This record gives sequence, C-alpha cells and structure tokens, in this order.
Amino acid sequence: MAGASPSPLAVSLGDPAGIGPEVIAKCWDNRAEFGLPPFVAIGDGRSIAAVWDGPIEVVDDPSQADAAFDYALPLIQVPSAGDDLPGHPSVAGAHCSLDALELAVGLARSGSASAVVTGPVSKEQLYAIGFSHPGQTEFVAERCGVSPGNVVMMLAGPTLRTVPVTTHLPLAAVPRALSSGLIESRGRAALRGLQRHFGIAEPRLAVSGLNPHAGESGELGREELDIIAPAIAALAAEGWRVTGPHPADTMFHDRARANYDAALCMYHDQALIPIKALHFEDAVNITLGLPIVRTSPDHGTAFRIAGQDRADPRPMAAALRMASKCAAYRSDLA
Amino acid sequence: MAGASPSPLAVSLGDPAGIGPEVIAKCWDNRAEFGLPPFVAIGDGRSIAAVWDGPIEVVDDPSQADAAFDYALPLIQVPSAGDDLPGHPSVAGAHCSLDALELAVGLARSGSASAVVTGPVSKEQLYAIGFSHPGQTEFVAERCGVSPGNVVMMLAGPTLRTVPVTTHLPLAAVPRALSSGLIESRGRAALRGLQRHFGIAEPRLAVSGLNPHAGESGELGREELDIIAPAIAALAAEGWRVTGPHPADTMFHDRARANYDAALCMYHDQALIPIKALHFEDAVNITLGLPIVRTSPDHGTAFRIAGQDRADPRPMAAALRMASKCAAYRSDLA
Repeated sequence: MAGASPSPLAVSLGDPAGIGPEVIAKCWDNRAEFGLPPFVAIGDGRSIAAVWDGPIEVVDDPSQADAAFDYALPLIQVPSAGDDLPGHPSVAGAHCSLDALELAVGLARSGSASAVVTGPVSKEQLYAIGFSHPGQTEFVAERCGVSPGNVVMMLAGPTLRTVPVTTHLPLAAVPRALSSGLIESRGRAALRGLQRHFGIAEPRLAVSGLNPHAGESGELGREELDIIAPAIAALAAEGWRVTGPHPADTMFHDRARANYDAALCMYHDQALIPIKALHFEDAVNITLGLPIVRTSPDHGTAFRIAGQDRADPRPMAAALRMASKCAAYRSDLA
Repeated sequence: MAGASPSPLAVSLGDPAGIGPEVIAKCWDNRAEFGLPPFVAIGDGRSIAAVWDGPIEVVDDPSQADAAFDYALPLIQVPSAGDDLPGHPSVAGAHCSLDALELAVGLARSGSASAVVTGPVSKEQLYAIGFSHPGQTEFVAERCGVSPGNVVMMLAGPTLRTVPVTTHLPLAAVPRALSSGLIESRGRAALRGLQRHFGIAEPRLAVSGLNPHAGESGELGREELDIIAPAIAALAAEGWRVTGPHPADTMFHDRARANYDAALCMYHDQALIPIKALHFEDAVNITLGLPIVRTSPDHGTAFRIAGQDRADPRPMAAALRMASKCAAYRSDLA
C-alpha cells in the first residue's frame, strides 16, 4: 500500500434511533475544522436523513468514498426493515445496527476500509433480538476470530491512556476477580497495543494498586503484594518497561502522567474517572488485541436527546481521528 | 470581632525532620505572591533555621504575629528535646510535632488564632511514641471534644470538593462498611460544612454510586438501590439538595462539576483520584464537623527530600488561603 492513499474509515451508524447518525453527519459537516480523514458511513441512510439535510452519496464500496467525500457524506446502505424514528428504538433498528457493524468489520478485515469506528448501539435492544455478547467489542472480536478474553479496552485521550483489568463487575467482585495471570495478560495486551496502534517502540506501563495508598505495604490490603507485584515482575522479566503498583490517587496529575504511556487500572472506575475528568469530550475507546483497528466514542445511544440536534459530535470526531492515526501506525509496521 | 482584623492563622510545623518547616518558610517568603494572610508558625525554630536562612521572630502569643509578619516569620517556640535533622525523623521530633499540634489547636479553640493549618506528621513516628489515634484529624477532634466519628475529611480544590464516606480501608472491605446511616451522616456533615466553612446557604451535594455505571439498575451491584438511594432520600426529606447515585466516571468533568458544591464518594480513591488529577498542587484537606477551622496540605512529610530545597510550597499556601477564607465565613456567621 506504500504510496497509495489509505483506504477510508468505515463508520457504523450504531442504533438508527440513537445519536449515532446525527454525530456522524455532524462530523462530515465539520470535517475540515475537526481535521477528519475520508470515511464512509455504514447503515440506513434514512436514519441520517431524519436528522440532517446535508448531501448523502450512496456508494457500493469504500473505494468510491474518497471521491465523494469532498461534496457528500459517503454511505454504504444497510437497510432497516422498519421505519426507525429518532429516540424510538426498535427491533428492526437493532438488527440494522448489527448488520452495519458486521459489514464494517468485514470491510476492515478485507482491507477495503483502513479501520472501523463504531457508533453507539443499545445493548437492551440487541439482547431483545437474541444478541448473546456482552457488547459490540466481543462481537467484533468473534468476527475477527479472536477470543474475547484476549481483547482489551483502552480509553485514550490527548494526555492519558488507561486500560482497566476488570470492567463491568460489581465493585465487591473486583478483588476476587483479580489474578496475576489476568493482570499480566491485560498488561501485555496494553503494551503490544501501544506498539502496534500508537507506534511506541518501548512503551511504558504504570500499574495501579487496588487499595488506598497501594495497600501501604500490606496495612490496607494485600492484593498489591500477593497479586499485582508478581504480575509486574513477570512482565518486567519479559523485558517490558513496567512500574507499580502505584497509589491510584497520585498517578493521574500532569507530572505523573508524563512518566508512562498507559496506566493499567484494576477496575472500571479507577480507569474511567481520571480519563473522563480530564478528557470528557475527546476520550476514545480503542479495542486492543484485534487484527484490525477499532475505535468508538465513549458514549451511548442517548435516545432521549436523539433527533433534537443536541448531540455533541466531538467524541465521534476524536474516535475517527484516532482510528486514522492508529491505522497509519499499523500500516507503517506492515 | 466585627471591624477588628482577624486573628492570625496558627500553623503547626509538623514533623521537624519533614518538609513542613521548609514549605512554611517558603510560604512566608512568597506571602505576597501567594496572597497569604498573617500566620504564626508553631514548633521548634531550629527545624526552620536548618533549612532556611530568612528572619524568624519568636513571639509569645499570636496577637504579636501581625506586627512581625511584614518583616519576619512569626514563631511560637515549641522546643524539641532532640537535635532534629532534615530527613532523619526521631522520637524527640515526634513529641515536638504533637506538642505543636496541641498548642495550635488550643490557640484556635480560645480564639487567639482564627484557624489551624497542620504541617505533615509521620504516623509511624507518632505510633512509636504511643500515639493511639489513626491520624492528626482524630487527635484534633478529641482535643476539640468531638467524637472522631462525627468529623469528616473534605478534599477541596478550585473547581471540585470531594468527601469520602470511607477512607483508609482495603477496597474489599468497602462494600460491607457502607450503610445508609453512615452515608447520611457523612452527607449531612458535608452539607453543614459547605454552609459553615464555605458560606453556601443552600449547598448541593452529588452522591456517587459504588459500582460501575452506578450499578446499572442493579445489574452491576445492588448497593445503589439498597444503601445509597435510601440515604439520599433521607437527606432530601430533611430538605437538603442531594442528587444521585451518579455513575462516578461521569461526575467529574467540567460541566458535571458545575452542578454541585461537593461530591460525596464511597471510598478513598473515588474521592482522591479526581481531586488529585485535576488539582494536584492546590488540593486542600479540610476537616468538617469541628468547632474550629482546620486545614492541611494533602501531602506527607516527604522525609526523603527534606532539607534539599526541593519541596513545593504551593499545597501549604493553598491550605493557608483556604483556612483564612473558611475562618472568615465562620466569623460572618457568628
């Protein structure tokens, strides 16, 4: 591919009744201001037309998107069986969101698209149609032939990247869900992701403690000594640059953040509180461990504001920019 | 006191071998730039002279501090029985730090000082001399005749205040330590503290959830439904403005912070990660529920850098400014 311009990004619209179509259309509107590369939307064009009156160019293949992108939003049509209205999720819309996601992943796997950016879907709606994955990420992993256990979520903003070791668990279940093996494998995936997606040859990983003050030498909990430190030692023995366990409260200020490329955190809020406090409008969710680049904005369908022209397109724009950047790093490696 | 200039602040030096003496001296050096009100240091003057060659004026009483403050650092001498060297904590130094703390509290209780600011002490050293309180806060509470269970730690920075419901507990112990009664009493103390110390007549309190997404209607934990929501309802029934339980990860960005005056958090890192990520240099620890105003910088003795002129005085300056401001609010109320 050297010399040729890169393939466009494939962006699935997400649930047609959510804010996905609106924020994607607004991204095209502001493509110059937001500094966006060419992308092709995947989904039902009617869900865009319902909330936006800009020009849409239906294409058959991402290769046609480049030429169209200057004057219209390129779209690969994935029709919904229903008449989806903004703010009114439906079974037909859920099917459509899944079909669009599947097509977008296929385009990236084949190389027709350089990366996938996924619009927000409704898990409740997907469960209603028999979707058996915890979320889009696991579905994407399966379609890529990767075990969901080997993919890792990274939240990335301009000055901080975090990777949670555990995600959607009750807090009380977190301590017993942690093991050295799990921390090691998440850490390894994070480090490899920094190399492959961010072009960092020798990435630095800072590992948080679980307890206040990282357990204060065992006074405030033993997980640091028994579980986290051995995982850090094992990663270090493989040659990775890994530090910790660090007290979580002193890991995220300006000077601390300068010391690492990503923070490996023990649980959901430990990873998400700092990234959203610092980078609410431009934090991007990127899935590590896949054979393709996949990013998404870190927000949901927001059905209650859909169709009201109130949705903020900046998170989607950040997801598009990051997908493009990561795809470029990967293609440099290839 | 109306019309009269307020009493000075009393600042205990903390452990003489720590960075307390240095940061307090640097605060006096930079009193104009930092916008600091008159204060009197309490401790052994030798620990200041060991790290600073500015002028010290020994006084007997805070009332003499005002006149001296322009040309020297006013000090009430509390001699140490040892020759404390920076970076070398000792039993004598621990005794001295405790004597200074006790005197500072007494001065504030009697009204000779308008508030107490406490320099960092070493818990290890204090334990070695038989100190039986978990920390300075509990000692101050006892000296003020208040049950330690009724005082609450608030972390306050320019754009965020947080109050942890539980503090130095292993994370695994947090869920079972939470009760509606505890959340209510901490919430009430936080709300009253906002009124008394910050002059906010109708304070707004945002209460966090414990689990990811605040439990997602029970899917990711039931503490929000069973424990936290009832506490919020009880506080609201008393007429307080309380909201939640909020997902902790979306509580701390700019727009969210504009909706409340303090965040009540369920555990140490939930409260401290955002405050330190956003306000590392100027977060102040303020103790609510006391008959006096007491603040402290949110850092420790830092023995390993003591005496090297490396300590950052900005957290101590922020603690001094906040003590002065809170004391003014309280005297307006009186």
